[in-house]
Amino acid sequence: MRADFQSWIAAQQVRFEDVLRELLPRAEAAPQRLHEAMRYAVLDGGKRVRPLLAFAAGELVGADAARLNIAAAAVELIHAYSLVHDDMPCMDNDVLRRGKPTCHVQYDEATALLVGDSLQMLAFQLLAEHRLSDDALRQLEMIKLLAVAAGSRGMAGGQAIDLASVGKSLTLPELEFMHIHKTGALIRAAILLGAHCGPDTQRGSVSSAQLDKLDHFGKLIGLAFQVVDDVLDCEADTVTLGKTAGKDADNDKPTYVSLLGIHGARDMALRLHREALETLAEFGDSAQRLRELADFIVLRKF
Amino acid sequence: MRADFQSWIAAQQVRFEDVLRELLPRAEAAPQRLHEAMRYAVLDGGKRVRPLLAFAAGELVGADAARLNIAAAAVELIHAYSLVHDDMPCMDNDVLRRGKPTCHVQYDEATALLVGDSLQMLAFQLLAEHRLSDDALRQLEMIKLLAVAAGSRGMAGGQAIDLASVGKSLTLPELEFMHIHKTGALIRAAILLGAHCGPDTQRGSVSSAQLDKLDHFGKLIGLAFQVVDDVLDCEADTVTLGKTAGKDADNDKPTYVSLLGIHGARDMALRLHREALETLAEFGDSAQRLRELADFIVLRKF
Repeated sequence: MRADFQSWIAAQQVRFEDVLRELLPRAEAAPQRLHEAMRYAVLDGGKRVRPLLAFAAGELVGADAARLNIAAAAVELIHAYSLVHDDMPCMDNDVLRRGKPTCHVQYDEATALLVGDSLQMLAFQLLAEHRLSDDALRQLEMIKLLAVAAGSRGMAGGQAIDLASVGKSLTLPELEFMHIHKTGALIRAAILLGAHCGPDTQRGSVSSAQLDKLDHFGKLIGLAFQVVDDVLDCEADTVTLGKTAGKDADNDKPTYVSLLGIHGARDMALRLHREALETLAEFGDSAQRLRELADFIVLRKF
Repeated sequence: MRADFQSWIAAQQVRFEDVLRELLPRAEAAPQRLHEAMRYAVLDGGKRVRPLLAFAAGELVGADAARLNIAAAAVELIHAYSLVHDDMPCMDNDVLRRGKPTCHVQYDEATALLVGDSLQMLAFQLLAEHRLSDDALRQLEMIKLLAVAAGSRGMAGGQAIDLASVGKSLTLPELEFMHIHKTGALIRAAILLGAHCGPDTQRGSVSSAQLDKLDHFGKLIGLAFQVVDDVLDCEADTVTLGKTAGKDADNDKPTYVSLLGIHGARDMALRLHREALETLAEFGDSAQRLRELADFIVLRKF
């Protein structure tokens, strides 16, 4: 990892933490406990991979920083809600997340449920109340994009397939289908929303062919992200990971490691990484941050 | 209830059921179980009070029927999601809703959680992908309006206050504050979204002063709705109500009946109803459906 990239990531993470802090309801505002729990679930945690992807895609098209902040925050709030709900006892029943007790452990289940619901609403409030494009129709497209990515044909659908797969042996295509929805949809949405924050297409921003390339990059890197997660989950101990390690194997969930072995899974991640970089070939220097993020995501522990 | 109004309601309910049936994901589309459960949670049930209010408000401003369908559906999906999540064991733990097993009983808790999440996303997908106004900025306003109404400062916040109030004695203003959020926010949003479906204000639709009147009407009728619910919950048996009767008293929740007695609560509902009708005075005949709905909501069992 180049020093320049390392300091870019660190600076973005610190800066974006402030953005989220500002955009979330204040903990003193009623209902306090709910707002406090929303802040607990979102702040001080995570690598902010999706926001970083949105920033990098936005940089590629010369997007306005203030607009990117809102788009990235909306995606991160959706991601944070999904973690809160997925951790609940009726789902993955996890007690540790980002090194802290999960939301329902720190508060209670009912509050965690409402935190997840409220974060979803906040994400769409943000996308609707800030100007993200000079073209309001394009902004409506962005809202649709996130709603579809997070909904029953996207992230939530992927989680449903995941739950249904516990104890079953999936084929590689089935596992891939699940993860393209569960993790991939939101990663792709992050990249596309970042790109949509750019100046209008008519005035010479990305073409729709280029958007397709970015989307394909997102698909590959999203899948690689999950493969790496499976490898790390298998290898790491709980302290390093910041969440309960070995959960998937314990829960008898199919993973890339269980299907391909640890070496096969590593190879697959590296292949996806290579293909993802090839997708960016035509963008030249403007896609440098996206390339570095691809490295960051895939090579984080290898 | 006038025969004309009765047949209007029946016709709208039948027609709107078809609208929802069309807008929901098909049960055959993957992930099937999730989509089937979404349809189970939304279809064949409920009086559709919020959609009816949206239609009546839309009629007042001469709104396009196709646009009203989408706005009404979005509100009803948010309402349906809130019922699914509120019925879950960690919230109200209810097993019966609209005369059927609740979603988590019919399916399972994890599915119910995902159904609620997916319905939220579908609501915003609909509001973003259909044209609801000639002015896209106004449509963004509508999206914001629903997100705020359903979020931590609206419906979800009201539910949080409700949960925190179990076993406590609330004052009348505290109870009112809770219900203005929990039930009222979405009822107001239904009316305002219906009104926003009308032609642009510049071209002589409702003024912002008139929108304020409609909003105030919604606030009063939303509160009356809750007071009547409390009275019915106290009086009715489970079969008539279609949900478990007497739950609130059993759960030691403060209600208008526990605070004011059954007669006091009835009087309050009637007073709110009268005030709501006064708010509509200036609209003349065009508000006839809204007046009839106010009667329908408040006088349904008295």
